[in-house]
Amino acid sequence: MTIASTSGAPSADPTATPLGFGVGARVTASVMTDDYARVLVDILSRLDLTGLVRETGDVSTYLGGHETHLQRALIDLAEALARTEHHATLSLTLSRGCPGEVVCELPGGAGPRCTDVPEPRRTGRYASAEWALYPLADQVSAGGTAPDHMRDIYAAIDHARELGTFRGSEHFVTRLEGDIGEVIATAVAGWLLVGRSVQHVTSHLILSLNSPSHEARELDGDARDGAAR
Amino acid sequence: MTIASTSGAPSADPTATPLGFGVGARVTASVMTDDYARVLVDILSRLDLTGLVRETGDVSTYLGGHETHLQRALIDLAEALARTEHHATLSLTLSRGCPGEVVCELPGGAGPRCTDVPEPRRTGRYASAEWALYPLADQVSAGGTAPDHMRDIYAAIDHARELGTFRGSEHFVTRLEGDIGEVIATAVAGWLLVGRSVQHVTSHLILSLNSPSHEARELDGDARDGAAR
Repeated sequence: MTIASTSGAPSADPTATPLGFGVGARVTASVMTDDYARVLVDILSRLDLTGLVRETGDVSTYLGGHETHLQRALIDLAEALARTEHHATLSLTLSRGCPGEVVCELPGGAGPRCTDVPEPRRTGRYASAEWALYPLADQVSAGGTAPDHMRDIYAAIDHARELGTFRGSEHFVTRLEGDIGEVIATAVAGWLLVGRSVQHVTSHLILSLNSPSHEARELDGDARDGAAR
Repeated sequence: MTIASTSGAPSADPTATPLGFGVGARVTASVMTDDYARVLVDILSRLDLTGLVRETGDVSTYLGGHETHLQRALIDLAEALARTEHHATLSLTLSRGCPGEVVCELPGGAGPRCTDVPEPRRTGRYASAEWALYPLADQVSAGGTAPDHMRDIYAAIDHARELGTFRGSEHFVTRLEGDIGEVIATAVAGWLLVGRSVQHVTSHLILSLNSPSHEARELDGDARDGAAR
Protein backbone atom coordinates (compact mmCIF):
# COMPACT_ATOMS: atom_id res chain seq x y z
CA MET A 1 0.00 0.00 0.00
CA THR A 2 2.98 2.30 0.31
CA ILE A 3 6.07 2.98 -1.68
CA ALA A 4 7.91 4.87 1.03
CA SER A 5 10.06 1.84 1.78
CA THR A 6 11.63 2.09 -1.65
CA SER A 7 13.27 5.34 -0.65
CA GLY A 8 15.89 3.53 1.40
CA ALA A 9 16.90 4.30 4.96
CA PRO A 10 14.71 6.80 6.80
CA SER A 11 17.60 9.18 7.12
CA ALA A 12 18.09 9.40 3.33
CA ASP A 13 17.05 12.65 1.65
CA PRO A 14 13.42 11.99 0.63
CA THR A 15 13.65 14.45 -2.25
CA ALA A 16 16.53 12.51 -3.83
CA THR A 17 14.43 9.80 -5.50
CA PRO A 18 11.09 10.18 -7.27
CA LEU A 19 9.51 7.18 -5.53
CA GLY A 20 10.84 8.26 -2.13
CA PHE A 21 9.15 11.63 -2.65
CA GLY A 22 5.92 10.07 -3.94
CA VAL A 23 6.20 11.39 -7.51
CA GLY A 24 3.54 9.75 -9.66
CA ALA A 25 0.27 9.82 -11.51
CA ARG A 26 -3.05 7.99 -11.63
CA VAL A 27 -4.56 7.56 -15.08
CA THR A 28 -8.12 6.64 -16.16
CA ALA A 29 -8.63 6.23 -19.92
CA SER A 30 -12.20 5.92 -21.22
CA VAL A 31 -12.78 5.04 -24.89
CA MET A 32 -16.29 5.53 -26.27
CA THR A 33 -16.59 2.28 -28.22
CA ASP A 34 -18.08 -1.15 -27.58
CA ASP A 35 -14.61 -2.47 -28.39
CA TYR A 36 -13.00 -0.46 -25.54
CA ALA A 37 -11.34 -3.41 -23.81
CA ARG A 38 -9.40 -4.50 -26.90
CA VAL A 39 -8.46 -0.91 -27.74
CA LEU A 40 -7.11 -0.20 -24.25
CA VAL A 41 -5.23 -3.49 -23.90
CA ASP A 42 -3.62 -2.86 -27.28
CA ILE A 43 -2.52 0.68 -26.33
CA LEU A 44 -1.28 -0.23 -22.85
CA SER A 45 0.66 -3.26 -24.07
CA ARG A 46 2.68 -1.02 -26.39
CA LEU A 47 3.24 1.86 -23.94
CA ASP A 48 6.90 2.55 -23.12
CA LEU A 49 7.10 2.49 -19.31
CA THR A 50 10.88 2.81 -19.06
CA GLY A 51 11.82 4.22 -15.67
CA LEU A 52 8.33 3.87 -14.21
CA VAL A 53 6.56 1.47 -11.87
CA ARG A 54 2.97 0.53 -12.68
CA GLU A 55 0.03 -0.85 -10.68
CA THR A 56 -3.13 -1.54 -12.64
CA GLY A 57 -6.54 -1.11 -11.02
CA ASP A 58 -10.17 -1.19 -12.08
CA VAL A 59 -10.66 2.57 -11.57
CA SER A 60 -7.23 3.86 -12.59
CA THR A 61 -3.65 2.82 -13.21
CA TYR A 62 -0.86 4.15 -10.98
CA LEU A 63 2.45 5.17 -12.55
CA GLY A 64 5.38 6.21 -10.33
CA GLY A 65 8.79 7.57 -11.24
CA HIS A 66 10.77 10.54 -12.47
CA GLU A 67 8.79 13.52 -13.76
CA THR A 68 10.42 13.33 -17.21
CA HIS A 69 9.46 9.67 -17.66
CA LEU A 70 5.94 10.38 -16.41
CA GLN A 71 5.41 13.20 -18.91
CA ARG A 72 6.70 11.05 -21.77
CA ALA A 73 4.40 8.14 -20.91
CA LEU A 74 1.33 10.36 -20.38
CA ILE A 75 1.80 12.09 -23.76
CA ASP A 76 2.43 8.75 -25.49
CA LEU A 77 -0.76 7.33 -23.93
CA ALA A 78 -2.91 10.31 -24.88
CA GLU A 79 -1.53 10.35 -28.43
CA ALA A 80 -2.22 6.63 -28.84
CA LEU A 81 -5.80 7.14 -27.60
CA ALA A 82 -6.31 10.00 -30.06
CA ARG A 83 -4.95 7.94 -32.96
CA THR A 84 -7.70 5.35 -32.48
CA GLU A 85 -10.05 8.11 -33.78
CA HIS A 86 -12.56 7.12 -31.11
CA HIS A 87 -13.89 9.78 -28.77
CA ALA A 88 -12.04 9.33 -25.49
CA THR A 89 -11.49 11.02 -22.16
CA LEU A 90 -8.29 10.80 -20.14
CA SER A 91 -8.36 11.71 -16.46
CA LEU A 92 -4.95 12.35 -14.88
CA THR A 93 -4.01 12.93 -11.24
CA LEU A 94 -0.45 14.08 -10.58
CA SER A 95 0.98 14.02 -7.06
CA ARG A 96 4.32 14.75 -5.36
CA GLY A 97 5.55 15.23 -1.84
CA CYS A 98 3.28 12.75 -0.04
CA PRO A 99 4.29 9.10 -0.60
CA GLY A 100 2.20 7.81 2.32
CA GLU A 101 -1.26 8.20 0.78
CA VAL A 102 -3.84 9.62 3.23
CA VAL A 103 -1.37 10.14 6.02
CA CYS A 104 1.81 11.63 4.67
CA GLU A 105 4.93 9.74 5.72
CA LEU A 106 7.22 12.66 5.04
CA PRO A 107 7.65 15.21 7.79
CA GLY A 108 6.99 18.85 7.03
CA GLY A 109 10.13 20.44 5.66
CA ALA A 110 11.23 17.21 3.92
CA GLY A 111 10.79 18.98 0.60
CA PRO A 112 10.37 20.68 -1.75
CA ARG A 113 12.02 18.71 -4.56
CA CYS A 114 13.23 20.93 -7.41
CA THR A 115 13.03 19.40 -10.87
CA ASP A 116 13.64 20.76 -14.36
CA VAL A 117 10.46 21.27 -16.37
CA PRO A 118 10.51 18.72 -19.24
CA GLU A 119 10.18 20.05 -22.79
CA PRO A 120 6.82 19.38 -24.46
CA ARG A 121 6.64 16.85 -27.31
CA ARG A 122 4.12 17.88 -29.95
CA THR A 123 1.89 15.17 -31.39
CA GLY A 124 -0.15 17.00 -34.08
CA ARG A 125 -3.31 15.96 -32.24
CA TYR A 126 -5.79 18.31 -30.54
CA ALA A 127 -7.19 18.14 -27.00
CA SER A 128 -9.43 20.33 -24.92
CA ALA A 129 -8.91 19.98 -21.20
CA GLU A 130 -9.82 21.21 -17.73
CA TRP A 131 -7.05 21.64 -15.19
CA ALA A 132 -6.89 22.14 -11.42
CA LEU A 133 -3.69 22.67 -9.42
CA TYR A 134 -3.52 22.30 -5.64
CA PRO A 135 -0.57 23.39 -3.50
CA LEU A 136 -1.32 21.52 -0.26
CA ALA A 137 0.47 23.49 2.36
CA ASP A 138 0.01 21.76 5.66
CA GLN A 139 3.13 23.17 7.12
CA VAL A 140 5.66 25.94 7.00
CA SER A 141 8.49 25.09 4.62
CA ALA A 142 12.08 24.39 5.60
CA GLY A 143 12.87 28.02 4.82
CA GLY A 144 10.53 29.14 7.58
CA THR A 145 7.91 30.74 5.36
CA ALA A 146 4.42 29.51 4.56
CA PRO A 147 4.03 28.77 0.84
CA ASP A 148 2.14 31.47 -1.07
CA HIS A 149 -0.68 29.54 -2.73
CA MET A 150 -1.82 32.27 -5.09
CA ARG A 151 1.67 33.36 -6.14
CA ASP A 152 2.38 29.78 -7.19
CA ILE A 153 -0.90 29.45 -9.07
CA TYR A 154 -0.23 32.70 -10.95
CA ALA A 155 3.21 31.45 -12.00
CA ALA A 156 1.67 28.25 -13.36
CA ILE A 157 -1.02 30.17 -15.27
CA ASP A 158 1.63 32.48 -16.74
CA HIS A 159 3.52 29.42 -17.94
CA ALA A 160 0.34 28.10 -19.59
CA ARG A 161 -0.05 31.42 -21.42
CA GLU A 162 3.55 31.15 -22.64
CA LEU A 163 2.91 27.63 -23.95
CA GLY A 164 -0.19 28.93 -25.76
CA THR A 165 -2.56 26.42 -24.16
CA PHE A 166 -4.38 28.74 -21.73
CA ARG A 167 -7.97 29.47 -22.82
CA GLY A 168 -9.52 30.94 -19.68
CA SER A 169 -10.95 30.28 -16.26
CA GLU A 170 -14.19 28.41 -15.68
CA HIS A 171 -15.83 27.38 -12.46
CA PHE A 172 -13.16 25.51 -10.40
CA VAL A 173 -10.85 24.82 -13.37
CA THR A 174 -8.62 26.38 -15.99
CA ARG A 175 -9.48 25.53 -19.59
CA LEU A 176 -6.58 24.40 -21.79
CA GLU A 177 -6.62 23.67 -25.52
CA GLY A 178 -4.02 22.75 -28.09
CA ASP A 179 -1.65 19.99 -29.03
CA ILE A 180 -2.07 17.02 -26.69
CA GLY A 181 1.63 17.13 -25.85
CA GLU A 182 1.56 20.80 -24.93
CA VAL A 183 -1.65 20.48 -22.90
CA ILE A 184 -0.16 17.67 -20.79
CA ALA A 185 3.17 19.52 -20.53
CA THR A 186 1.30 22.58 -19.22
CA ALA A 187 -0.15 20.59 -16.34
CA VAL A 188 3.17 18.87 -15.59
CA ALA A 189 5.02 22.21 -15.68
CA GLY A 190 2.53 23.91 -13.35
CA TRP A 191 2.80 21.01 -10.93
CA LEU A 192 6.63 21.21 -10.98
CA LEU A 193 6.79 25.01 -10.79
CA VAL A 194 4.57 25.05 -7.69
CA GLY A 195 6.58 22.08 -6.41
CA ARG A 196 9.67 24.26 -6.24
CA SER A 197 8.25 26.02 -3.17
CA VAL A 198 5.59 23.62 -1.84
CA GLN A 199 6.30 20.04 -0.72
CA HIS A 200 2.92 18.42 -1.43
CA VAL A 201 1.32 19.41 -4.75
CA THR A 202 -1.42 17.61 -6.68
CA SER A 203 -2.92 18.44 -10.06
CA HIS A 204 -5.96 17.08 -11.90
CA LEU A 205 -6.33 17.22 -15.68
CA ILE A 206 -9.19 15.82 -17.79
CA LEU A 207 -8.60 15.70 -21.54
CA SER A 208 -11.28 15.30 -24.18
CA LEU A 209 -10.01 13.68 -27.39
CA ASN A 210 -11.78 13.36 -30.76
CA SER A 211 -14.93 15.00 -29.43
CA PRO A 212 -17.61 15.58 -32.10
CA SER A 213 -17.57 19.22 -30.97
CA HIS A 214 -13.89 19.51 -31.88
CA GLU A 215 -14.34 19.03 -35.60
CA ALA A 216 -13.97 22.70 -36.43
CA ARG A 217 -10.99 23.06 -34.12
CA GLU A 218 -8.61 20.23 -35.03
CA LEU A 219 -4.98 21.20 -35.32
CA ASP A 220 -3.68 21.84 -38.77
CA GLY A 221 -0.11 20.65 -38.44
CA ASP A 222 1.30 22.67 -41.32
CA ALA A 223 -0.49 25.88 -40.41
CA ARG A 224 0.44 25.48 -36.78
CA ASP A 225 4.09 24.74 -37.41
CA GLY A 226 4.37 28.07 -39.20
CA ALA A 227 2.28 30.05 -36.74
CA ALA A 228 3.86 32.63 -34.50
CA ARG A 229 3.96 31.36 -30.95
CA MET B 1 -17.09 33.51 -16.32
CA THR B 2 -18.07 34.09 -12.72
CA ILE B 3 -21.14 33.49 -10.63
CA ALA B 4 -20.11 35.75 -7.77
CA SER B 5 -22.52 38.43 -8.97
CA THR B 6 -25.45 36.16 -8.17
CA SER B 7 -24.67 36.45 -4.49
CA GLY B 8 -26.12 39.97 -4.31
CA ALA B 9 -24.48 43.02 -2.81
CA PRO B 10 -20.84 42.65 -1.79
CA SER B 11 -21.76 43.19 1.83
CA ALA B 12 -24.11 40.19 1.88
CA ASP B 13 -22.95 37.13 3.81
CA PRO B 14 -21.21 35.04 1.14
CA THR B 15 -21.95 31.83 3.02
CA ALA B 16 -25.71 32.46 2.89
CA THR B 17 -26.31 31.25 -0.67
CA PRO B 18 -24.76 28.22 -2.39
CA LEU B 19 -23.93 30.14 -5.58
CA GLY B 20 -22.52 33.09 -3.63
CA PHE B 21 -20.19 30.65 -1.85
CA GLY B 22 -19.28 28.83 -5.07
CA VAL B 23 -20.91 25.51 -4.17
CA GLY B 24 -20.93 23.24 -7.21
CA ALA B 25 -19.61 20.30 -9.17
CA ARG B 26 -18.08 19.52 -12.55
CA VAL B 27 -19.14 16.19 -14.08
CA THR B 28 -17.60 14.16 -16.93
CA ALA B 29 -19.53 11.01 -17.91
CA SER B 30 -17.86 8.56 -20.29
CA VAL B 31 -19.87 5.62 -21.68
CA MET B 32 -17.95 2.82 -23.39
CA THR B 33 -20.20 2.34 -26.40
CA ASP B 34 -20.23 3.54 -30.01
CA ASP B 35 -23.71 4.86 -29.22
CA TYR B 36 -22.41 7.09 -26.40
CA ALA B 37 -23.87 10.35 -27.72
CA ARG B 38 -27.45 9.05 -27.81
CA VAL B 39 -27.05 7.38 -24.41
CA LEU B 40 -25.77 10.55 -22.74
CA VAL B 41 -28.30 12.89 -24.34
CA ASP B 42 -31.07 10.56 -23.23
CA ILE B 43 -29.83 10.46 -19.62
CA LEU B 44 -29.13 14.18 -19.35
CA SER B 45 -32.48 15.16 -20.85
CA ARG B 46 -34.28 13.26 -18.10
CA LEU B 47 -32.07 14.39 -15.19
CA ASP B 48 -33.91 16.36 -12.48
CA LEU B 49 -31.94 19.60 -12.08
CA THR B 50 -34.36 21.27 -9.66
CA GLY B 51 -32.53 23.92 -7.66
CA LEU B 52 -29.36 23.77 -9.77
CA VAL B 53 -27.81 25.88 -12.52
CA ARG B 54 -26.11 24.04 -15.39
CA GLU B 55 -23.48 24.99 -17.98
CA THR B 56 -22.63 22.28 -20.51
CA GLY B 57 -19.11 22.03 -21.92
CA ASP B 58 -17.17 19.65 -24.14
CA VAL B 59 -14.94 18.42 -21.28
CA SER B 60 -17.41 18.54 -18.39
CA THR B 61 -20.74 19.95 -17.27
CA TYR B 62 -20.90 22.44 -14.41
CA LEU B 63 -23.71 22.16 -11.85
CA GLY B 64 -24.10 24.81 -9.14
CA GLY B 65 -26.45 25.01 -6.20
CA HIS B 66 -27.31 23.68 -2.76
CA GLU B 67 -25.38 20.65 -1.55
CA THR B 68 -28.54 18.57 -1.10
CA HIS B 69 -29.66 19.19 -4.69
CA LEU B 70 -26.15 18.46 -5.97
CA GLN B 71 -25.98 15.10 -4.19
CA ARG B 72 -29.43 14.12 -5.49
CA ALA B 73 -28.54 14.97 -9.10
CA LEU B 74 -25.13 13.27 -8.95
CA ILE B 75 -26.62 10.03 -7.57
CA ASP B 76 -29.45 10.15 -10.14
CA LEU B 77 -26.92 10.63 -12.95
CA ALA B 78 -24.66 7.80 -11.79
CA GLU B 79 -27.61 5.44 -11.32
CA ALA B 80 -28.92 6.24 -14.81
CA LEU B 81 -25.47 5.55 -16.27
CA ALA B 82 -25.29 2.23 -14.44
CA ARG B 83 -28.76 1.20 -15.64
CA THR B 84 -27.61 1.43 -19.27
CA GLU B 85 -25.53 -1.69 -18.45
CA HIS B 86 -22.65 -0.19 -20.44
CA HIS B 87 -19.27 0.15 -18.78
CA ALA B 88 -18.93 3.82 -17.80
CA THR B 89 -16.73 6.14 -15.79
CA LEU B 90 -17.96 9.23 -13.99
CA SER B 91 -15.46 11.88 -12.94
CA LEU B 92 -16.72 14.37 -10.34
CA THR B 93 -15.09 17.53 -9.00
CA LEU B 94 -16.77 19.14 -5.98
CA SER B 95 -15.84 22.66 -4.91
CA ARG B 96 -16.95 25.18 -2.27
CA GLY B 97 -15.66 28.44 -0.84
CA CYS B 98 -14.07 29.89 -4.00
CA PRO B 99 -16.64 31.25 -6.48
CA GLY B 100 -14.08 33.26 -8.45
CA GLU B 101 -12.30 30.38 -10.24
CA VAL B 102 -8.51 30.76 -10.29
CA VAL B 103 -8.46 33.90 -8.21
CA CYS B 104 -10.85 33.56 -5.31
CA GLU B 105 -13.28 36.45 -5.02
CA LEU B 106 -14.06 35.75 -1.38
CA PRO B 107 -11.71 37.22 1.20
CA GLY B 108 -10.14 34.93 3.76
CA GLY B 109 -12.49 34.52 6.70
CA ALA B 110 -15.61 34.79 4.51
CA GLY B 111 -16.40 31.21 5.43
CA PRO B 112 -16.70 28.44 6.35
CA ARG B 113 -20.30 27.59 5.39
CA CYS B 114 -21.83 24.91 7.63
CA THR B 115 -24.28 22.57 5.94
CA ASP B 116 -26.09 19.44 7.08
CA VAL B 117 -24.74 16.25 5.52
CA PRO B 118 -27.46 14.88 3.18
CA GLU B 119 -28.66 11.32 3.76
CA PRO B 120 -27.49 8.79 1.16
CA ARG B 121 -30.03 7.35 -1.28
CA ARG B 122 -29.30 3.72 -2.10
CA THR B 123 -29.66 2.61 -5.71
CA GLY B 124 -28.98 -1.14 -5.60
CA ARG B 125 -26.12 -0.57 -8.06
CA TYR B 126 -22.41 -1.11 -7.37
CA ALA B 127 -19.50 1.27 -7.97
CA SER B 128 -15.82 1.18 -7.24
CA ALA B 129 -14.25 4.60 -6.89
CA GLU B 130 -11.13 6.59 -6.07
CA TRP B 131 -11.49 9.68 -3.91
CA ALA B 132 -9.27 12.65 -3.07
CA LEU B 133 -10.19 15.44 -0.64
CA TYR B 134 -8.34 18.76 -0.50
CA PRO B 135 -8.77 21.34 2.27
CA LEU B 136 -7.21 24.41 0.59
CA ALA B 137 -6.17 26.56 3.45
CA ASP B 138 -4.73 29.74 2.08
CA GLN B 139 -5.57 31.73 5.13
CA VAL B 140 -6.30 31.63 8.81
CA SER B 141 -10.00 31.18 9.47
CA ALA B 142 -12.33 33.75 11.01
CA GLY B 143 -11.77 32.06 14.35
CA GLY B 144 -8.11 32.95 14.22
CA THR B 145 -6.78 29.42 13.85
CA ALA B 146 -5.22 27.77 10.83
CA PRO B 147 -7.33 24.81 9.65
CA ASP B 148 -5.92 21.43 10.64
CA HIS B 149 -5.64 19.60 7.30
CA MET B 150 -5.00 16.14 8.70
CA ARG B 151 -7.63 16.34 11.48
CA ASP B 152 -10.25 17.13 8.82
CA ILE B 153 -9.10 14.34 6.54
CA TYR B 154 -9.25 11.82 9.40
CA ALA B 155 -12.82 12.89 10.23
CA ALA B 156 -13.85 12.35 6.61
CA ILE B 157 -12.19 8.91 6.48
CA ASP B 158 -13.91 7.94 9.74
CA HIS B 159 -17.25 8.91 8.18
CA ALA B 160 -16.47 6.73 5.14
CA ARG B 161 -15.80 3.80 7.48
CA GLU B 162 -19.17 4.40 9.18
CA LEU B 163 -20.94 4.40 5.80
CA GLY B 164 -19.21 1.11 4.96
CA THR B 165 -17.70 2.39 1.70
CA PHE B 166 -14.07 2.72 2.82
CA ARG B 167 -11.81 0.03 1.31
CA GLY B 168 -8.33 1.39 1.91
CA SER B 169 -5.67 3.85 0.91
CA GLU B 170 -3.85 3.66 -2.40
CA HIS B 171 -1.29 6.02 -3.88
CA PHE B 172 -2.81 9.54 -3.73
CA VAL B 173 -6.42 8.36 -3.27
CA THR B 174 -8.82 6.55 -0.97
CA ARG B 175 -10.59 3.56 -2.49
CA LEU B 176 -14.37 3.40 -1.99
CA GLU B 177 -16.74 0.59 -2.96
CA GLY B 178 -20.42 -0.06 -2.50
CA ASP B 179 -23.80 1.22 -3.52
CA ILE B 180 -23.43 4.11 -5.98
CA GLY B 181 -25.54 6.33 -3.73
CA GLU B 182 -23.43 5.64 -0.66
CA VAL B 183 -20.15 6.08 -2.55
CA ILE B 184 -21.19 9.51 -3.82
CA ALA B 185 -22.64 10.43 -0.40
CA THR B 186 -19.29 9.53 1.17
CA ALA B 187 -17.47 12.06 -0.99
CA VAL B 188 -20.13 14.74 -0.48
CA ALA B 189 -20.10 14.17 3.30
CA GLY B 190 -16.30 14.38 3.51
CA TRP B 191 -16.36 17.59 1.50
CA LEU B 192 -19.01 19.09 3.82
CA LEU B 193 -17.41 17.86 7.05
CA VAL B 194 -14.08 19.45 6.12
CA GLY B 195 -16.05 22.48 4.93
CA ARG B 196 -17.22 23.12 8.48
CA SER B 197 -13.75 24.34 9.41
CA VAL B 198 -12.13 25.24 6.06
CA GLN B 199 -13.52 27.82 3.63
CA HIS B 200 -12.18 26.44 0.33
CA VAL B 201 -12.50 22.65 -0.07
CA THR B 202 -12.40 20.58 -3.26
CA SER B 203 -12.88 16.86 -3.75
CA HIS B 204 -12.33 14.58 -6.75
CA LEU B 205 -14.13 11.27 -7.19
CA ILE B 206 -13.88 8.86 -10.13
CA LEU B 207 -16.46 6.08 -10.26
CA SER B 208 -16.20 2.93 -12.34
CA LEU B 209 -19.60 1.45 -13.26
CA ASN B 210 -20.37 -1.94 -14.84
CA SER B 211 -16.68 -2.82 -15.13
CA PRO B 212 -16.04 -6.36 -16.39
CA SER B 213 -13.89 -6.80 -13.28
CA HIS B 214 -16.90 -6.11 -11.05
CA GLU B 215 -18.86 -9.18 -12.05
CA ALA B 216 -18.04 -11.09 -8.89
CA ARG B 217 -18.71 -8.06 -6.71
CA GLU B 218 -22.12 -6.74 -7.76
CA LEU B 219 -24.42 -5.78 -4.92
CA ASP B 220 -26.98 -8.30 -3.92
CA GLY B 221 -29.77 -6.04 -2.72
CA ASP B 222 -31.44 -8.61 -0.49
CA ALA B 223 -28.25 -9.87 1.06
CA ARG B 224 -27.01 -6.34 1.62
CA ASP B 225 -30.21 -5.11 3.21
CA GLY B 226 -29.85 -7.76 5.85
CA ALA B 227 -26.13 -7.40 6.38
CA ALA B 228 -24.74 -5.93 9.55
CA ARG B 229 -23.37 -2.49 8.83
